[in-house]
Amino acid sequence: MSFRIPRRGGLSVSASLLRKPALQPQISRTFFTSSNTSAKAVRYSTITRNALVASIGISAAGGLGWSMRPETQLCDNGKLSPEESDAIQKRENGVTESSPMRLRMEAMIRQKQKEIVEALEKIDGEKFIVDAWARESGGGGVSCVLQDGNVFEKAGVNISIVYGTLPPAAVQSMRAHHKSFDPNDDKVNFFAAGLSMVLHPKNPMAPTVHLNYRYFETMNEDGSTKSWWFGGGTDLTPSYLFDEDAIHFHRTLKEACDRHDPEYYPRFKKWCDDYFYVKHRHESRGIGGIFFDDLEDKDPEQLLSFVTDCLGSFIPGYLPILEKRKDLPFTQDEKNWQQLRRGRYVEFNLVHDRGTKFGLNTPHARIESILMSLPLTARWQYMHEPEKGTREHRMVDVLKNPREWVQTSA
Amino acid sequence: MSFRIPRRGGLSVSASLLRKPALQPQISRTFFTSSNTSAKAVRYSTITRNALVASIGISAAGGLGWSMRPETQLCDNGKLSPEESDAIQKRENGVTESSPMRLRMEAMIRQKQKEIVEALEKIDGEKFIVDAWARESGGGGVSCVLQDGNVFEKAGVNISIVYGTLPPAAVQSMRAHHKSFDPNDDKVNFFAAGLSMVLHPKNPMAPTVHLNYRYFETMNEDGSTKSWWFGGGTDLTPSYLFDEDAIHFHRTLKEACDRHDPEYYPRFKKWCDDYFYVKHRHESRGIGGIFFDDLEDKDPEQLLSFVTDCLGSFIPGYLPILEKRKDLPFTQDEKNWQQLRRGRYVEFNLVHDRGTKFGLNTPHARIESILMSLPLTARWQYMHEPEKGTREHRMVDVLKNPREWVQTSA
Repeated sequence: MSFRIPRRGGLSVSASLLRKPALQPQISRTFFTSSNTSAKAVRYSTITRNALVASIGISAAGGLGWSMRPETQLCDNGKLSPEESDAIQKRENGVTESSPMRLRMEAMIRQKQKEIVEALEKIDGEKFIVDAWARESGGGGVSCVLQDGNVFEKAGVNISIVYGTLPPAAVQSMRAHHKSFDPNDDKVNFFAAGLSMVLHPKNPMAPTVHLNYRYFETMNEDGSTKSWWFGGGTDLTPSYLFDEDAIHFHRTLKEACDRHDPEYYPRFKKWCDDYFYVKHRHESRGIGGIFFDDLEDKDPEQLLSFVTDCLGSFIPGYLPILEKRKDLPFTQDEKNWQQLRRGRYVEFNLVHDRGTKFGLNTPHARIESILMSLPLTARWQYMHEPEKGTREHRMVDVLKNPREWVQTSA
Repeated sequence: MSFRIPRRGGLSVSASLLRKPALQPQISRTFFTSSNTSAKAVRYSTITRNALVASIGISAAGGLGWSMRPETQLCDNGKLSPEESDAIQKRENGVTESSPMRLRMEAMIRQKQKEIVEALEKIDGEKFIVDAWARESGGGGVSCVLQDGNVFEKAGVNISIVYGTLPPAAVQSMRAHHKSFDPNDDKVNFFAAGLSMVLHPKNPMAPTVHLNYRYFETMNEDGSTKSWWFGGGTDLTPSYLFDEDAIHFHRTLKEACDRHDPEYYPRFKKWCDDYFYVKHRHESRGIGGIFFDDLEDKDPEQLLSFVTDCLGSFIPGYLPILEKRKDLPFTQDEKNWQQLRRGRYVEFNLVHDRGTKFGLNTPHARIESILMSLPLTARWQYMHEPEKGTREHRMVDVLKNPREWVQTSA
């Protein structure tokens, strides 16, 4: 990982930000342990809370569809805000198994981002550009992007951590899914943390992969947890279908799911097929994977463990496929087909994806983190229809009729 | 213009369609006068009314945002439908100055499509692919597309003509703008005809251009006109700004407007800047032009003449610019910048354009006609920001701060 020097005319380091203690310790302790943490080398920008939420919601923000009110760092009653007390707790005790779930999720996604970025740099040979960004009242995110590398056309691995308050409309809409919401609350403190990733390899035989895992909670004034849930998913979008890859990818996800609940994989596989359906093309974006939201059906410890396992399954589930496909020979026609499929990817993300739509409609969102999911290049060709019997035709057939790639007992 | 032979597995000629007299005469009389009208050579497809409306609304469908109910060719009372009687009138009398506005608008856009396509073929050297499509109950459209030509990366010139009935919700929403709507009507016959065009030249120095002109009316049972209005606009999207081109383009539009109403240009120029604003990027899609909707402030004859004049101003307004820029030398960096601007074009069309959004959400819409507006290729590069003092930076500056390109007295 290499840090990016702020460019002339770009976003610049804010001195007041760097003086704030809230963000610095968590960055140096967890994420940037082995890296150069010199303030000059880290690119910061001042953003709003909305931008943080928007960047979490790169795909399937789900319940994150609200706009937020300004907040102050101290609560109305003069006590420390949940964010401030979390920052102190991290600084004084680090993050342990007895820390609040907020801090454990944050530490987990920072760790996973680091592992994933390191693994991807190893396979590509090029380094990610790292943009660590913060907002005035604390909290922040880290966008890691590798563009036009040896293996990847574009690879983005983002995390963001948000503290804020929900307006009444958002509380109202969330109450439907979460009965623990207090109907008398008009101001709800919330926390959201997520890791989002999209990888577009150059070789048309190597599939695009996307994942997004997030934790959401609302808090009492004293920082104790009120409501909480997990959401996320991992899905694969090949231009050329290798059945063995699809089977390996789904099997790895199924194994991660099965370790926690035998009903998860079939349920979340279907949810994924439903979510990533490109209605106007009558086809799926890819060959699916898993997807879930509002997950609160087990003990939070168990679900953190499940989500950690899902994230952990990414490297064994995807990298062997990438290794096998990244250097396969291909023709210009095959590259064109990949570019056309990239176009469909753009269509899904810009037209249908709830997280992207929400982000783009959020004032002052960090657009570059949201649209990091788009490929470097894409193509739209009028009336392109693959000939029957070709590999391209079979790919489309599978997108129109999602398959079961691994046997389930359900 | 060359006709496309239906491909194996593609959309095929429907024998029952070709037996219907309603569409054939209008095609051979007006649009395809000098062309081979052999049924075998024309590519037809059976589509729904929604698809026709959707394809009209390639940009800024405006009031066209409803879904429609099935209709029969004969009215409930057994009389001929407006469409059927229009078809008979065309067949027996042709289209004259005393014909209903529906037929005159249709004849006008067919003629303009022909003129524009011929002019563009002359400048490119390659021929357009022509897809004439019809739906079972009559009416239809013609999509002309030139892809990967000598001058054009992608050029699409579409017309469509629709007859249908409006559901109550649409009537309700239109009543706000058009007081002539009868509040007691629960079923309203309507007609819509439009020409839409998007040209993406290859050379990054040559600007993309878009236009869309349409006529909408509702009819009494006997086919006489109840409410009606015109809408449309023409706008330019350069990657590199040549002030003289912007001035020439706007001046030509202003002259067309001024011949009809001195207040039109300033009013429609501002409307255009407002409509083509890419909110999430805080910039305009291009350097504007004119845009208007629900126009019914003059005699329909005068407005048909205005819209005809706007369409007529396209060739003198755009082709001289294209001639000057299409063969200019350019670097790979300049081509990349064009591709990035293409990406922004895609963002506007897929995220913000009302017509595209409506079309994509319309079941059974002819997606290829709607997305004909997208460029052949586009690019998204993380955190690309042009350096101050460069031509790219100036372009963005103008997109963020729309200019007045010609003096107006208003």
